[in-house]
Amino acid sequence: MKKTLPITIVADELARLRATNPLVHLLTNEVVQEITANVLLAIGASPAMIVAEEEAAFFAAISGALLVNVGTLYPARLTVMKQAIVSANQAAVPWTLDPVAVGVLDYRTQACREFVACQPTAIRGNASEILALAGFAASGRGVDTLADSASAVAAAEQLARSTGAIVAVTGETDYITDGAITWATPWGHPVMTRVVGTGCALSALVAAFTAQAPNPLNAVAAACAVAGLCGEKAAARSHGPGSFKAAFLDTLYLLTPDILRKESV
Amino acid sequence: MKKTLPITIVADELARLRATNPLVHLLTNEVVQEITANVLLAIGASPAMIVAEEEAAFFAAISGALLVNVGTLYPARLTVMKQAIVSANQAAVPWTLDPVAVGVLDYRTQACREFVACQPTAIRGNASEILALAGFAASGRGVDTLADSASAVAAAEQLARSTGAIVAVTGETDYITDGAITWATPWGHPVMTRVVGTGCALSALVAAFTAQAPNPLNAVAAACAVAGLCGEKAAARSHGPGSFKAAFLDTLYLLTPDILRKESV
Amino acid sequence: MKKTLPITIVADELARLRATNPLVHLLTNEVVQEITANVLLAIGASPAMIVAEEEAAFFAAISGALLVNVGTLYPARLTVMKQAIVSANQAAVPWTLDPVAVGVLDYRTQACREFVACQPTAIRGNASEILALAGFAASGRGVDTLADSASAVAAAEQLARSTGAIVAVTGETDYITDGAITWATPWGHPVMTRVVGTGCALSALVAAFTAQAPNPLNAVAAACAVAGLCGEKAAARSHGPGSFKAAFLDTLYLLTPDILRKESV
Repeated sequence: MKKTLPITIVADELARLRATNPLVHLLTNEVVQEITANVLLAIGASPAMIVAEEEAAFFAAISGALLVNVGTLYPARLTVMKQAIVSANQAAVPWTLDPVAVGVLDYRTQACREFVACQPTAIRGNASEILALAGFAASGRGVDTLADSASAVAAAEQLARSTGAIVAVTGETDYITDGAITWATPWGHPVMTRVVGTGCALSALVAAFTAQAPNPLNAVAAACAVAGLCGEKAAARSHGPGSFKAAFLDTLYLLTPDILRKESV
Repeated sequence: MKKTLPITIVADELARLRATNPLVHLLTNEVVQEITANVLLAIGASPAMIVAEEEAAFFAAISGALLVNVGTLYPARLTVMKQAIVSANQAAVPWTLDPVAVGVLDYRTQACREFVACQPTAIRGNASEILALAGFAASGRGVDTLADSASAVAAAEQLARSTGAIVAVTGETDYITDGAITWATPWGHPVMTRVVGTGCALSALVAAFTAQAPNPLNAVAAACAVAGLCGEKAAARSHGPGSFKAAFLDTLYLLTPDILRKESV
Repeated sequence: MKKTLPITIVADELARLRATNPLVHLLTNEVVQEITANVLLAIGASPAMIVAEEEAAFFAAISGALLVNVGTLYPARLTVMKQAIVSANQAAVPWTLDPVAVGVLDYRTQACREFVACQPTAIRGNASEILALAGFAASGRGVDTLADSASAVAAAEQLARSTGAIVAVTGETDYITDGAITWATPWGHPVMTRVVGTGCALSALVAAFTAQAPNPLNAVAAACAVAGLCGEKAAARSHGPGSFKAAFLDTLYLLTPDILRKESV
């Protein structure tokens, strides 16, 4: 059963994030680093990209959360990701996987399969990516997806059960599941698909919300809700993808638990 | 003879691009990846940066077009570029070269000479770069150019004839030539030179328009025209380079063939 | 004694920068390259990221100034930085160090100690970073700082005397010192801490102002003042970090020596 996430949960999770200002270690792709960092700064987390073998394992262990995004994977970065994941797991630091374009290209598909076996706290992908990770046939062509998120809910639930991760399959409606309970977050706007990094930045938000989260399912769902709600508000105040991006960051920054609680009445 | 490109050709080429939503494989420089991706998303193409040796050749072959930009060239990336070019040529995927700062630095000059011998579909550069590639003396200092685009038209025409590529030499007016016919696109605004990546993103637009193009000369010229026309409109609606960038992306997104056809009356 | 920098000095330094349009070689981190380049273009300098071993030493020597920022340091980039610094010193090109997160991670701490021994023209950091570089105990966690800039003025003055560099310790108020004279620049706005790269871009401004500077202390202080003054103006015209970034670039672009001189009356 898929129920819409109550806004009061989003408000509570945002209040928790703002109170802790988590340090998030980002091992993400070359293209989206600036928008990803800005999304985290706007919501109230502290991003840090520490990418050297000499530093990444140590830094993952002292961070509040870790993000691993395979968008522009290559061997040196893959090595660092593996070290950071081992270190995060040893230190009980939650980590999130964004399996960009998994299923399309063998190299990253193999890497993602190894990552999934390392007990991620959360996995965030579009329908094609979640279908591919769960072993279903997929039809993506990079970050695009040709599949509707609803079509991947069963795959997401199966992936959550087999890995122990919270799995978010995002699209027009996002579905977030631990394999037993599945929340739906129906917010967002199509212009978000015309701004590079909105999906990757959502994965960073997911990582930020998992830091010290008493309820990881609600944390991940709240991250999806915050991105969708702010995307909707920002789209209403902008004229296209350029002005949208600025408005999106402003909206994340100005959002408060109280604003959310008033809307939920 | 240099004639101004008719707007009706721009409209027809834009309609063709929007109908096909080409997947564009971008091997570009470190600095401009986000704006390059956002320009392609705004106009209606799908960008993908796939940079590993393990993936790039395969991905180039399944893309609609490939861009090779040498702005931040280094050995590992150079290897991947060569592999992607070979693969694109084998699969008959059109590819575009942006020879950033060629002629200023020996390493990239040598790389660009090798690339030019690999039958690019299109080459897009400023006057200094086109003069250097064609073997004329140049005077650039990086991405800046001290030469006027008109001064490089003869070099562009010679380069087009010797390589078989469509050559675009861009500046206050852009000239696009196949060695026989030369279109001029006189649109644009000086503020574009104060936003990093407008030239590199134009090369990505050129690549996108060459995907499945029945007339590559018109396709490349239309890419230059779209960038210039949207730049002019965006400059009129903004106050400096920061607001310009957002307005430029909005304008690319909102542009339609019908808007262009009405303006051409 | 710490005196507020007179605006007339800022105006004179800006006039000098605009007249020379310096070429600035940027070896900076992965995350902030676009905003750094855009800040330099907006103020009237020409940024270039030349990162290959094959090119960096040559390019540093023909540049007006060099920036070395260790934000995403890794071995290949470290090698290039060392070569560029040697080359800059041989050619009497001023260079600026941004020791991001020095003191938190051993690898970059060691690298920064080596860099500091290579006679930088300027060093720009937050209080934690300057305290760590000067050998005081620090408490940073990445680019964040938990210390107030005023608490690091003595460390900055000591670091300036021991290295010969102009040292800028930035925060709510910036302090810029050559070890004898210390300027304070009290301008800025808290929203700047919620936009990634404002500190790194300030270091690039510092580098740009040091190019051919007859008075490096005033040059570095003017860079801090320009960033702070434009940050204040931009914050007044924006609603959050997204609109701030665009307004900041616009304000840098529109700022003139005359505007500054009128304000100083």
